[in-house]
Amino acid sequence: MAARLQRSLELPGPTPAADRFAAALSDIGARFRQLCAPVQVRRFVDAHRAWLFGVGWQVANRASGGLPGLDDYLTMRLHSAGGEPTFAMLEIANGLEVPGPEMDAPAVRALTEMAILVAALDNDRYSFRRESLRLQTDQNVFTVLMSELGCSLEHAVHEATALRDRVMCRFIELRERVCHGASTALRGYLTGLGHGIRGNAEWGQRAPRYLSLGELPDDMTAPEITWADRPATGGPDPRPAPTIGWWWDRLI
Amino acid sequence: MAARLQRSLELPGPTPAADRFAAALSDIGARFRQLCAPVQVRRFVDAHRAWLFGVGWQVANRASGGLPGLDDYLTMRLHSAGGEPTFAMLEIANGLEVPGPEMDAPAVRALTEMAILVAALDNDRYSFRRESLRLQTDQNVFTVLMSELGCSLEHAVHEATALRDRVMCRFIELRERVCHGASTALRGYLTGLGHGIRGNAEWGQRAPRYLSLGELPDDMTAPEITWADRPATGGPDPRPAPTIGWWWDRLI
Repeated sequence: MAARLQRSLELPGPTPAADRFAAALSDIGARFRQLCAPVQVRRFVDAHRAWLFGVGWQVANRASGGLPGLDDYLTMRLHSAGGEPTFAMLEIANGLEVPGPEMDAPAVRALTEMAILVAALDNDRYSFRRESLRLQTDQNVFTVLMSELGCSLEHAVHEATALRDRVMCRFIELRERVCHGASTALRGYLTGLGHGIRGNAEWGQRAPRYLSLGELPDDMTAPEITWADRPATGGPDPRPAPTIGWWWDRLI
Repeated sequence: MAARLQRSLELPGPTPAADRFAAALSDIGARFRQLCAPVQVRRFVDAHRAWLFGVGWQVANRASGGLPGLDDYLTMRLHSAGGEPTFAMLEIANGLEVPGPEMDAPAVRALTEMAILVAALDNDRYSFRRESLRLQTDQNVFTVLMSELGCSLEHAVHEATALRDRVMCRFIELRERVCHGASTALRGYLTGLGHGIRGNAEWGQRAPRYLSLGELPDDMTAPEITWADRPATGGPDPRPAPTIGWWWDRLI
């Protein structure tokens, strides 16, 4: 079904779609084709496939009952969180056309991934309460860290927050450097990534989907969501996680 | 494993790879990054993910024992055949850099897909004998057509050949029109697609992997591989298969 869905997005023009989801996605694709250039559509299409690829991994983990290690979890979350197609819409929504050599440069790729991961970790946090209530906490950064470090939920929350904040700090630092000499379109895109992080955090605290729907079991405490003026310290050094460690390399 | 492999390709620079396959793919990625621009690397990376996505579908079909319909089969084959990453290497091997607006235009996307499908259908043909011997003929264009049309293998071979030839003819016709006004890089790429079709057909008849390894069961006849001076006629009109029907639309 996922592959058929993806194809309905790839096909230009209206196609006799097999089901309502494919029809809706085909319609979105058609609108994008009217609104923007083929390069922007192709970026969205590829991002959408990467998302489905990540979700497939997530579903497979769930089916096998296995909890991934931190490095695998972060790799999976970069794709399964849906951040890639979301951020691929920045160009479309804002009428930007970031040239390929800029968009595909390692530093910009890293910034996109950082924004996705920060938003994904924030999502892990604000969806934890609801997932706990529905006993769906199979794979999130807290359960993964508890398993990886053999620690309490409280400690895992601290570690996860520190990891998230380290990525956020690196994002801000690298983005500022990349913005020097960037095209107007790229600067607009990078600004949009930041808005995406903030917007996602705001949305997660207001969306009915994530609001508390009851009481947690006695032995569980949902991590509180708070705004902080400065990054949490400590937490796992991201460099040993090869999947994101390269973000701290000299990329520009 | 597929997702971990894919990630080893995405990461710039050498990474401590988890297994030998990831290490080899990471090495290929590093060589490509030295040889060509980030846009060409990104195209290969996306093509590689699309391939794994298609192979995942193929494996899932095999696991469930289901034989897809023709439209689904063609969609799957466009990705599972490995044509996308193969053709993404044309730019890298030839030192071409096709501009995004040209590469992502629907006509060029269609030509790439046509070349992939012709090669994939040729592959179905020259691997049929070996697959028959190993009783692995679960999913190929012949079994799919036999099931779809309720026909004999002989008739399915005729229909598959006619379909393949129709796509080939459309490829030649559309390519000629796209070449007018195309950049040198795009012309080089489109020429490479044609070489890929021919090279694949030659290779399939010589590679030890596909040569006969014994006698077929009495009730099976492998379709003979022959060169033809003109296209086979008849065969299913491709337009009712939405996944490829748009190739015959007015794309330029």
